[in-house]
Amino acid sequence: MESDDGEVVSNKQVIFKDYVLGVLKESDMYIATSTIKLKVPEDCTNGVLVKNLYLSCDPYMRNRMSNFQGSYFSSLKPGSPISGRGVAKVLDSRHPDYKKGDFIWGITGWEEYSLITATETLFKIHDKDVPLSYYTGILGMPGMTAYAGFYEICSPKKGEFVFISAASGAVGQLVGQFAKLLGCYVVGSAGSKDKVDLLKNKFGFDDAFNYKEELDLDAALKRHLKLVKERAGGFYMVCFIALKFGFTGPWYFPDGIDIYFENVGGKMLDAVLLNMRVRGRISVCGMVSQYNLEQPEGVHNLMHLVQKRIHMEGFLVYYFYHLFPKYLDMVLPYIKQGKIVYVEDIAKGLENAPAALTGLSQVAMSENKWL
Amino acid sequence: MESDDGEVVSNKQVIFKDYVLGVLKESDMYIATSTIKLKVPEDCTNGVLVKNLYLSCDPYMRNRMSNFQGSYFSSLKPGSPISGRGVAKVLDSRHPDYKKGDFIWGITGWEEYSLITATETLFKIHDKDVPLSYYTGILGMPGMTAYAGFYEICSPKKGEFVFISAASGAVGQLVGQFAKLLGCYVVGSAGSKDKVDLLKNKFGFDDAFNYKEELDLDAALKRHLKLVKERAGGFYMVCFIALKFGFTGPWYFPDGIDIYFENVGGKMLDAVLLNMRVRGRISVCGMVSQYNLEQPEGVHNLMHLVQKRIHMEGFLVYYFYHLFPKYLDMVLPYIKQGKIVYVEDIAKGLENAPAALTGLSQVAMSENKWL
Repeated sequence: MESDDGEVVSNKQVIFKDYVLGVLKESDMYIATSTIKLKVPEDCTNGVLVKNLYLSCDPYMRNRMSNFQGSYFSSLKPGSPISGRGVAKVLDSRHPDYKKGDFIWGITGWEEYSLITATETLFKIHDKDVPLSYYTGILGMPGMTAYAGFYEICSPKKGEFVFISAASGAVGQLVGQFAKLLGCYVVGSAGSKDKVDLLKNKFGFDDAFNYKEELDLDAALKRHLKLVKERAGGFYMVCFIALKFGFTGPWYFPDGIDIYFENVGGKMLDAVLLNMRVRGRISVCGMVSQYNLEQPEGVHNLMHLVQKRIHMEGFLVYYFYHLFPKYLDMVLPYIKQGKIVYVEDIAKGLENAPAALTGLSQVAMSENKWL
Repeated sequence: MESDDGEVVSNKQVIFKDYVLGVLKESDMYIATSTIKLKVPEDCTNGVLVKNLYLSCDPYMRNRMSNFQGSYFSSLKPGSPISGRGVAKVLDSRHPDYKKGDFIWGITGWEEYSLITATETLFKIHDKDVPLSYYTGILGMPGMTAYAGFYEICSPKKGEFVFISAASGAVGQLVGQFAKLLGCYVVGSAGSKDKVDLLKNKFGFDDAFNYKEELDLDAALKRHLKLVKERAGGFYMVCFIALKFGFTGPWYFPDGIDIYFENVGGKMLDAVLLNMRVRGRISVCGMVSQYNLEQPEGVHNLMHLVQKRIHMEGFLVYYFYHLFPKYLDMVLPYIKQGKIVYVEDIAKGLENAPAALTGLSQVAMSENKWL
């Protein structure tokens, strides 16, 4: 122990073994223990030394475990601790914006303590009236993703029909609740009965279905959209009038989706394209059903983009963080008033982190039920 | 002959036989002769009777020959004359906007004379200082398509890299010339050496290639983009500086396409997605390589939409005709000053219309060299 320069402690870590091809397994990671001095070295300008409190398992992390270049993020380094977003407490700092005792969220390591040098990813946590773990979710990257992908990409309007895949996920559950608060009709798909129950009973979706129980996704979408529209009322009168007056031109599609929040890709995207309405918008957040495939599935119905004049746009949350204060202003009151709920799945202990990430990826993998 | 009420004359027609599955053949159409009175019937308010002068063969027409619903246009009616855009002279009119002797363009029939009742598709031709056939091309629907799809969907900027497929077609040749006039770098693909020569030597493209001679479209795109960039100069200095300073984040892709004007779909789209730059725009005008296929090809690389934050948007020219006067103001001076050229392929006589349309479709079909 060196009392002036920081205690040297043992530091349990989750190490990324090597690039993964195909399905992620727990054995692609292992637990190791090294040591760390709890002080930022003198030559490390702007460094921050933290104790990690919560680490986030996000679907995009699977992509960082492949060895590909030219993407928006770098691959993880084999033999090093996994890096990802987390909530941490500052133990020592040479950065002017952070001091000992601060809580932060941003990119840290899958280990007990981290020396963070890429501090540009960090946000200081000001509001501690909410569970701190929320800063890995609704108040962190997934929350900002839902906000940017829905409001900025889709320009949603009251009364529109919104469909969300992987809807019970960290992002999907928020998009659905934002859409409901705006006065949209919302249908979601998820991969189990429990998740579907959550969507309908906890998150207030108008309807939801388990895609694993559907042989024909196109038919499933049509059925659930119809149900929601019948309940919404009045719609069929509009259809009747439209048909009565022969109004069946390009501007008239009786059933369909105005906004699709795309999380899965593949066959679900193909089914959705068949059901989009004219001038629909597709916000492409991710394609989790494809991440474990060596060759992504083909999407066949892209001509619907032309026929229905659809705007489809990919986005990355990193370019929307300037809106983070505005997002907090919106979402914190909703949370405190109970108007938005957030469901987390928390595993305890670093030892359980590989299983938690693999479990998430297995969800991802099983999204692709057609393999 | 009824002199007061209009002469009755014979009217040669091209009849659409029945819905087409797969490749369009000349035998899907036949020539017939009926008669027509050269006067608008009294009960036909707003009708216009015209002598057709030029009829347009457009790739979208193949789609109208399939029996599908819910699209932006209705299918053609088996047993009736083919309908499509053309230039015509008004012989008689009950429409206040058109009088005998006027020239118009819009939707007419594939026959010598047509009684047009859906007059909302018609435009009066004011400027006759240019070949009248141009109103089926550069001054008609294809011109407006190029203008809307390039300027309205892609928001192009000087210095950007533009790639156009089916680039020697009625639309593609104009998009390329618009892009050059704006100061963009332009590469095009086409399906023969003659077309590639046209692109490079007549339309002023920076480079072009014959996709039929390329086994690897991705490699072809990279090679031609690199050539153009080397000629553009200065670019590699930027790359050098970027690499020198480790600036290899998401905002840096050394080679690539800012704007893709999509006319063909399928494997070309997959190759283009690999080569798009960050914040690229894809204007989806059509997917002609897919129209003759019973099941469209799958597109595999859509995750690039997310990684590169690409905006992809389908459009239909019908919704941009309010910009037609503005377009004419731009393009007519360019034509008269010789700053834009337009190459047409004109077959003479209604008897040759089925072959011309089939020829176009065969071009379309052979775009898909992978079959």
